[in-house]
Amino acid sequence: MYKMELLAIYHERMIILNNLTMLTDFYQITMMQGYFLSGRSEDPSVFEMFIRQNPDGGGFSVFAGLEQFAEYIENLRFNEADIAYLRGLGLFDERFLEYLRGFKFTGDIYAMREGSVFFPHEPVVVVKAPMAQANFIETALLNILNHQSLIATKAARVNYAAGGNVLEFGARRAQGPDAAVYGARAAVIGGCVATSNVICAKEFDVAPRGTHSHSWVMSFDSELEAFRAYSDAFEDKCVLLVDTYDTILSGMPNAVTVFNERRKAGNLPPNYGIRLDSGDFAYLSKVARKMLDDAGFEDAYITITGDLDEYLIQELKLQGARVDYWGVGTRLITSKDAPSMGGVYKLAAFDQGGGMLPKIKLSENPEKVTTPGVKKLWRIYDTKNGMMKADYITLEHEEMDTGADLTLFDPKAPWKKMHLKAFEYTARQMLEPIFKDGVKVFESPPVADIAKYCAKEQATLWEEYRRLVNPHIMPVDLSQKLYDLKQQMIWDARHP
Amino acid sequence: MYKMELLAIYHERMIILNNLTMLTDFYQITMMQGYFLSGRSEDPSVFEMFIRQNPDGGGFSVFAGLEQFAEYIENLRFNEADIAYLRGLGLFDERFLEYLRGFKFTGDIYAMREGSVFFPHEPVVVVKAPMAQANFIETALLNILNHQSLIATKAARVNYAAGGNVLEFGARRAQGPDAAVYGARAAVIGGCVATSNVICAKEFDVAPRGTHSHSWVMSFDSELEAFRAYSDAFEDKCVLLVDTYDTILSGMPNAVTVFNERRKAGNLPPNYGIRLDSGDFAYLSKVARKMLDDAGFEDAYITITGDLDEYLIQELKLQGARVDYWGVGTRLITSKDAPSMGGVYKLAAFDQGGGMLPKIKLSENPEKVTTPGVKKLWRIYDTKNGMMKADYITLEHEEMDTGADLTLFDPKAPWKKMHLKAFEYTARQMLEPIFKDGVKVFESPPVADIAKYCAKEQATLWEEYRRLVNPHIMPVDLSQKLYDLKQQMIWDARHP
Repeated sequence: MYKMELLAIYHERMIILNNLTMLTDFYQITMMQGYFLSGRSEDPSVFEMFIRQNPDGGGFSVFAGLEQFAEYIENLRFNEADIAYLRGLGLFDERFLEYLRGFKFTGDIYAMREGSVFFPHEPVVVVKAPMAQANFIETALLNILNHQSLIATKAARVNYAAGGNVLEFGARRAQGPDAAVYGARAAVIGGCVATSNVICAKEFDVAPRGTHSHSWVMSFDSELEAFRAYSDAFEDKCVLLVDTYDTILSGMPNAVTVFNERRKAGNLPPNYGIRLDSGDFAYLSKVARKMLDDAGFEDAYITITGDLDEYLIQELKLQGARVDYWGVGTRLITSKDAPSMGGVYKLAAFDQGGGMLPKIKLSENPEKVTTPGVKKLWRIYDTKNGMMKADYITLEHEEMDTGADLTLFDPKAPWKKMHLKAFEYTARQMLEPIFKDGVKVFESPPVADIAKYCAKEQATLWEEYRRLVNPHIMPVDLSQKLYDLKQQMIWDARHP
Repeated sequence: MYKMELLAIYHERMIILNNLTMLTDFYQITMMQGYFLSGRSEDPSVFEMFIRQNPDGGGFSVFAGLEQFAEYIENLRFNEADIAYLRGLGLFDERFLEYLRGFKFTGDIYAMREGSVFFPHEPVVVVKAPMAQANFIETALLNILNHQSLIATKAARVNYAAGGNVLEFGARRAQGPDAAVYGARAAVIGGCVATSNVICAKEFDVAPRGTHSHSWVMSFDSELEAFRAYSDAFEDKCVLLVDTYDTILSGMPNAVTVFNERRKAGNLPPNYGIRLDSGDFAYLSKVARKMLDDAGFEDAYITITGDLDEYLIQELKLQGARVDYWGVGTRLITSKDAPSMGGVYKLAAFDQGGGMLPKIKLSENPEKVTTPGVKKLWRIYDTKNGMMKADYITLEHEEMDTGADLTLFDPKAPWKKMHLKAFEYTARQMLEPIFKDGVKVFESPPVADIAKYCAKEQATLWEEYRRLVNPHIMPVDLSQKLYDLKQQMIWDARHP
């Protein structure tokens, strides 16, 4: 008896804590009542998520957050407290509130694999579900995927500039706890090799990194004493922050003293070095490198931290800075230059009984006109070298004969064409099933595997697409049939 | 028996889910082992949080997040899974891991009231606790308070520009779920009157707001049909999005038709109006207002949404836009122009057995030199009008005779002086006790009350401090004793 009661409480409480059902814009619930009361909540619909531009003026984006989005869908359920709250607002119909009690996701979801690169104006997630469900999940879907994709994309840029060995150090400046934890996860997917964030390290099996702060040094009577005490506390690591007082006159000589003492004692660990957190990194890193080398510590590594981003890292490398690890904080974890990914979620097709019909949203701004219909997304590679040539969108039921020649054209300038002989290209479908009839049909790989896949994805992009400023634009082309459908629907809407 | 077991599981599970103990930079834990093994973990220390500049080039910041920070402190506890994880890293001493098992916060915390305005280079939080504890809490403290203060500050700016009636609509672009929920909370503290975020609305008793999307309209055969169905779904509200096809030629006439139908039926609700989400807001809002007024709907309100921020709102008001509510999303919830608050947390004093000694951190950059010692913060008001004149920092044990004349001077330019006669000023202590010996000694007020207090705080600032660009700088002055101590310690450190 007790057991059942407690389990019930426990279960209810778990759902309150674990689930993000109420992480929604209020209008999703008012619309849901609208669909319910107008008898259209169960009509099949198709929605798509896409972006209109890459953040930071980059040439590509990185898709991340799928694991957390799938958890959200699995846990989707209004609990009694949610329903009581909504009832208290005095806006909702009792039949609708009763409907919410049994509400769950029963549809299909397709998405790119986490870690995939993606481009503007192509579907990265496709949701096929009864209208009430597909419409409702918009806010959380965008919140989770926009956030993690933003940070993964930024991390890819930073990692590109650094050429590897980027550490995520942003927790204290992240926009709240989730932004710190899931931001760190996304940063690792985008290319960071470790994080300072302990929850992220623990939950996602990522290497945790970090040494000590200035306050550690300040809390001792001398810097040397502070270094010795820190060194004594760890057999297997010895990384010292050398800029509390004066890097060259005090910090470096004291660090070298401690390294010498440990070498003499025969317990210098492989994981040792120094960290610089202020000053002229180009100059100081070169001096520090020389001081370490001169003392025979060629394998000591140098980490730098302090308002780094992809541009500063590129500058420092151009100036010959001697840096082994780049600790990147604020500007990565907030994607400082572009702190939001503008992913949107639009109705592509709807079936109100007369079959699934394509839907289009017009706009004064041509960039904002959606591409109608249920679609498939293909990635086209060059057979010669495996490099990516284009993305290609077809209607769902269109036959794509990958054994035939292919003509691609730019939907914004259809006279710009690319002809590919059958042997010149391979094609891969990018949208994979995530949910089928409400049941999760994929297992999210470990973050390390997602990161590996992401690196592989990026390696199929020529440097021209990866450079930080004014990159080449990857073609995202429509099949002739899809292009014609879009033109026809624009015409029809304008000439009713 | 069952009951006890289940309660134990329940309790453990609650701690895993509720608590952010592991939301920390890894170096906090390595340092903690350092303090523990060097026998200094229990030595009394004092740390302070402060900022070095206001975000966005503003004249002030708004303090927010105290309630969540206090919850973090109350829940601080390493659970068995945390300890097992740390053990698995192979870096930590068993005695230290045992120490972690009993770790909790036992110190004192002082902070400004949530919703206070604050300025660079003054303590907003003071932590007095054994070194291991005070040092450890840095990451979560900064994460929570930096985030919410950032968004509250941005909201204050946006609200200042709009003159009220700002709605927080940013969930889909926030940096993860917490950023959406706690960002919305902070936005309300800073001045927003409502949010679209349903978790925030429910948890913090804030008005939820929202109507319908373009996809609602697209899912019907005609816009008019869509408006009617939405109108039918709610007796007490009728707000229609009018820009799906053509605002002036289609959306507005259809909205007016539906309002007329409801008026005729005698059930036009008081909460009705239109929303504009694209196009030239200045022009369209004026046309829409005229169409509504001409049809006798003078009390219908106009809401606009779409990449708004404080600058665009100011522009629109200058152009005479007719807007009743401003729905602000991305640029508020991410504080787009300045997506991080640079709050830092520094050692101010430490007692290693010889009494509490002030500590200073030097830097090549004079802005980064800390002010040493345990301090009090006073806010000085003009008796004539109640407006704020300055903030004034004294040493903790300094007598402040508020019945005597006061001379303030700029610590960066000590010859700039302000003399106040006793009757010309009042002084208020800004740092209030939050924890005493590890026990929470304050109750966080409801968010609505915090928001009211924040409005009152802002009202004590002359317009010159509130304007968006190039505001006046509020003096944050040091007492003569504190100034002398700082100069002496800089001298001593430079001439050892």
